[in-house]
Amino acid sequence: MKPCDLAHKRILITQADSFMGPMLCRTFADLGAKVFTDNRPLLDPELPAQIVRAAEPLDVLVVNLALAAPFTPAISADDEEWQQVFSHLVDPLPRLVRAALPSMIQRGAGKILLMGSAAALRGMKRASTYSAARGAQLAYIQAAGIELAPHNIQINAIAQNFVDNPTYFPMEIQSNPAFRERLKREVPLGRLVSASEDALFAAYLCSDAADCFVGQVFPICGGWVTR
Amino acid sequence: MKPCDLAHKRILITQADSFMGPMLCRTFADLGAKVFTDNRPLLDPELPAQIVRAAEPLDVLVVNLALAAPFTPAISADDEEWQQVFSHLVDPLPRLVRAALPSMIQRGAGKILLMGSAAALRGMKRASTYSAARGAQLAYIQAAGIELAPHNIQINAIAQNFVDNPTYFPMEIQSNPAFRERLKREVPLGRLVSASEDALFAAYLCSDAADCFVGQVFPICGGWVTR
Amino acid sequence: MKPCDLAHKRILITQADSFMGPMLCRTFADLGAKVFTDNRPLLDPELPAQIVRAAEPLDVLVVNLALAAPFTPAISADDEEWQQVFSHLVDPLPRLVRAALPSMIQRGAGKILLMGSAAALRGMKRASTYSAARGAQLAYIQAAGIELAPHNIQINAIAQNFVDNPTYFPMEIQSNPAFRERLKREVPLGRLVSASEDALFAAYLCSDAADCFVGQVFPICGGWVTR
Amino acid sequence: MKPCDLAHKRILITQADSFMGPMLCRTFADLGAKVFTDNRPLLDPELPAQIVRAAEPLDVLVVNLALAAPFTPAISADDEEWQQVFSHLVDPLPRLVRAALPSMIQRGAGKILLMGSAAALRGMKRASTYSAARGAQLAYIQAAGIELAPHNIQINAIAQNFVDNPTYFPMEIQSNPAFRERLKREVPLGRLVSASEDALFAAYLCSDAADCFVGQVFPICGGWVTR
Repeated sequence: MKPCDLAHKRILITQADSFMGPMLCRTFADLGAKVFTDNRPLLDPELPAQIVRAAEPLDVLVVNLALAAPFTPAISADDEEWQQVFSHLVDPLPRLVRAALPSMIQRGAGKILLMGSAAALRGMKRASTYSAARGAQLAYIQAAGIELAPHNIQINAIAQNFVDNPTYFPMEIQSNPAFRERLKREVPLGRLVSASEDALFAAYLCSDAADCFVGQVFPICGGWVTR
Repeated sequence: MKPCDLAHKRILITQADSFMGPMLCRTFADLGAKVFTDNRPLLDPELPAQIVRAAEPLDVLVVNLALAAPFTPAISADDEEWQQVFSHLVDPLPRLVRAALPSMIQRGAGKILLMGSAAALRGMKRASTYSAARGAQLAYIQAAGIELAPHNIQINAIAQNFVDNPTYFPMEIQSNPAFRERLKREVPLGRLVSASEDALFAAYLCSDAADCFVGQVFPICGGWVTR
Repeated sequence: MKPCDLAHKRILITQADSFMGPMLCRTFADLGAKVFTDNRPLLDPELPAQIVRAAEPLDVLVVNLALAAPFTPAISADDEEWQQVFSHLVDPLPRLVRAALPSMIQRGAGKILLMGSAAALRGMKRASTYSAARGAQLAYIQAAGIELAPHNIQINAIAQNFVDNPTYFPMEIQSNPAFRERLKREVPLGRLVSASEDALFAAYLCSDAADCFVGQVFPICGGWVTR
Repeated sequence: MKPCDLAHKRILITQADSFMGPMLCRTFADLGAKVFTDNRPLLDPELPAQIVRAAEPLDVLVVNLALAAPFTPAISADDEEWQQVFSHLVDPLPRLVRAALPSMIQRGAGKILLMGSAAALRGMKRASTYSAARGAQLAYIQAAGIELAPHNIQINAIAQNFVDNPTYFPMEIQSNPAFRERLKREVPLGRLVSASEDALFAAYLCSDAADCFVGQVFPICGGWVTR
């Protein structure tokens, strides 16, 4: 068993041009995967099944759902914001899993990895809607992970924060001295996790070496949460 | 400061005839609270604001949202189930909080307690939809709790499981010897938490004695999860 | 069942003039308990059994072990520091529990509450020795709590931090504006938890109302950790 | 950056013929590491510094401390057991870290990985002493990990359980049908994690790819705990 070897693995990455998508695609391809991608936000309820069908048989489904997090105080986070965030980040998740499972169950093998957020593990101000959506994702993964384990299907999640990506940390923010001070104060690592570090860890979790993890949430956030 | 003293406190309990509602109403009234209740599932988007308005000024809002959990395998948990569960358990939460906050912020005091579920903390089979909804709730509470703390508003959650209530553990289940065996095997406490134990702990968290807790999740599940 | 009622309960509080001891004694007595105290650090291996014997039959044992935390970098935390911290905070714990259990098992009832620290739940700089000792305590409580639950003995822990007490937050620290700024930045609550809030929560956990909690760790630290 | 690449890395593995030692040595050597080993239990307080000295300069220190866990009820876990378990599993940890840090700080790089136990994360019966020792380890790692992060030193822990190793799961236990039933019931994975899966994950955490993790605890226990 070679660690992080993704040779010949058929892997679908959703919203592949957003959030961690670009680095995931590059890293996974470098490690030998046959990467299938779709760039669309998965708002259409039929879309998840369509993109899964088009890539099957799948060894791995990487659920990378993206939306710029609204930073709204709880008092003014309205139904429209809620609906938008949940329709992008939450509703597509069970649709994707439902679409991928039959073939995985039939072959007795498969992996699903969610690119989730540590915002669900530790409260942040002005992020109630976003945190709620991310919390729905992680709890879903824990439950589905336990349920599908006997089928030799491993469903897990990364819970990231302070990972370098253009959606949340564009260059103008990163070059701001106040932001760098904040990083040193709030994030034990003292810097952003690089996109490459994040993608390599994701690759590990998608490889055969990680057959032993089920329903588990892995924080990757520079020590901002540690478990 | 008397612990669990709710004398003269104006407390709204939602879906008061469901889930933990009946025992909460009785216990809180016994402890001196002026209890306001509404029994309706909060599906109508306008309803949360209406029932909050009718009870204001509120010292405490108890968010008790109820729905019999569907026990569906993840592979067949469809959009309809998802929509039903989220519309009952998740969507009303930010509407209630949004409605209650302005007056609480203005008075510089208030408490919101969610009657949540430990299903969001530990995976269970055939409970992916329900767990996801409960996970959204808890992450929302953590975020809003951190945000509102400076306003002297305390927002916290109970994360319960294996608590005696007619929705989840009707008498015919409790009298089943196999269920009692399962309790002894899976729940360190060896029995269901009583509804009264749960309601008294909720009362504590709603009393002035609990001003020090913010954005926190309290498992109450007989040791099924311990943190 | 009256919440926080400790009437007629025989409760032993160790190191009663240190750490949370003074406020625990006053609060528990106010709530009707017959409080037994001993002020000595429990370094002598025979002492725990002696003070338990002297107070039996015990309804509740409150394990309040105290030592000013050394703030030493890991690189220079030597054997002497380690030995001192563990001999004060860790070694007495199993001796106390071992002494209290036979009578509690025989009567089929009893409670043990550890006044522990959230330093075991989240890393802090220059606190490696202290955190390790506090981590030993909490893991011990989780294990013993699961084991003794079938005997109707409830063993739990408070994991506190940022609680007002003269050992860790003497008045000269509290009046320092820099410290108050740090509180606002690092502790969501924005202030210290009062000793009275801590002691009342401990009283709740020692009352009959808390028979449902076993092997559980309750953070009380102003939201510094939330679970 | 190649994941799990340990080429040319100088790595010391303690108690290398016990617990996870043999598989760690083989796996790390296969991945290119120059592995230094010592087989002795580290009871002599001078020994940790000696074996670190003999292997320096070290890129990675793997703290693999081993002792067959005593399964004693809390009521009869005596001072002798406590002393034996802590002297094997706990006391050597700060000595090893203290010995390794000066050179790592000077070079501005280094990693320390503890092979810890999930027994510290979830209570188990008849394991109070062992759990306490494992809890001390994890809390120490969290604190030291936060403290040393600014020096570009990454200190983390694996918290394992239900991993195949001759110390805890000898062949006669594994071939017992009752044990296999217990695995299916208690461990979501339904089987033991293989020693190789555990060692590969350890290799990942010791590689340059894992520079982003600090003070973090990684459960690897087949879903028995998920965070």
